[in-house]
Amino acid sequence: MKKVYFAGSIRGGRVDAELYKRMIAFIKTRAEVLTEHVGDLSLSVFEGENGRDRMIYEQDTAWLRECDLVIAECTCPSLGVGYELAYAERFEKPCYVFYDKNKGNLSAMINGNEYFRVCPYGSEEELFCMLSSIM
Amino acid sequence: MKKVYFAGSIRGGRVDAELYKRMIAFIKTRAEVLTEHVGDLSLSVFEGENGRDRMIYEQDTAWLRECDLVIAECTCPSLGVGYELAYAERFEKPCYVFYDKNKGNLSAMINGNEYFRVCPYGSEEELFCMLSSIM
Repeated sequence: MKKVYFAGSIRGGRVDAELYKRMIAFIKTRAEVLTEHVGDLSLSVFEGENGRDRMIYEQDTAWLRECDLVIAECTCPSLGVGYELAYAERFEKPCYVFYDKNKGNLSAMINGNEYFRVCPYGSEEELFCMLSSIM
Repeated sequence: MKKVYFAGSIRGGRVDAELYKRMIAFIKTRAEVLTEHVGDLSLSVFEGENGRDRMIYEQDTAWLRECDLVIAECTCPSLGVGYELAYAERFEKPCYVFYDKNKGNLSAMINGNEYFRVCPYGSEEELFCMLSSIM
């Protein structure tokens, strides 16, 4: 079973947390999701003291090295997701980058980088159709 | 003269663009700033067609490899800045990460990563005092 690292905004804003939850539930029907907590609606968005943040960093980068592919939802800008995408590129993990083209403008650092498979969507149906095709 | 890559949000939101402009003006009194456009208040925040975004990506990553240090203002979450910080880490460039601790929660991918020199500030005076001490 493939291992998926799902990336979405946490401290950058939780406006799309419900969508992350639905995407993770869908992916879980076909693969293992290492980062299921990204869709947890009760997740704290506040900075931890340094020891806790170091543990999160160590765990997330270990999962990025372990995963088979990365699926990122990038409509809500997030410093952490940008870091994770570059880290995944460094370890040559396939990366699929989704964003709602009616709401967001994808960074040129991602949109202009041929490494990433950019998937703009216009509706949630279109998003899940694309998601299905890559699993 | 040292070369500085200044990183700030563009498509992630321009709410802090005036601050970026003041920081860049200050840094320019002591170093060369490769990315002065980040403080340009008339900069377009919209996605370019793919050829333009590819040019931006190629130019910004070339500057990241060329610079002596990175100074990032991370209060406004930005996918591009997260990517740039990971890219700079990969090329072992010293990275100073500023953010207003009254407004933002820094990502654990940055705050929990010992590579980055994180500089939380409570006022603009404090920010410029820290900026002065690293130049």
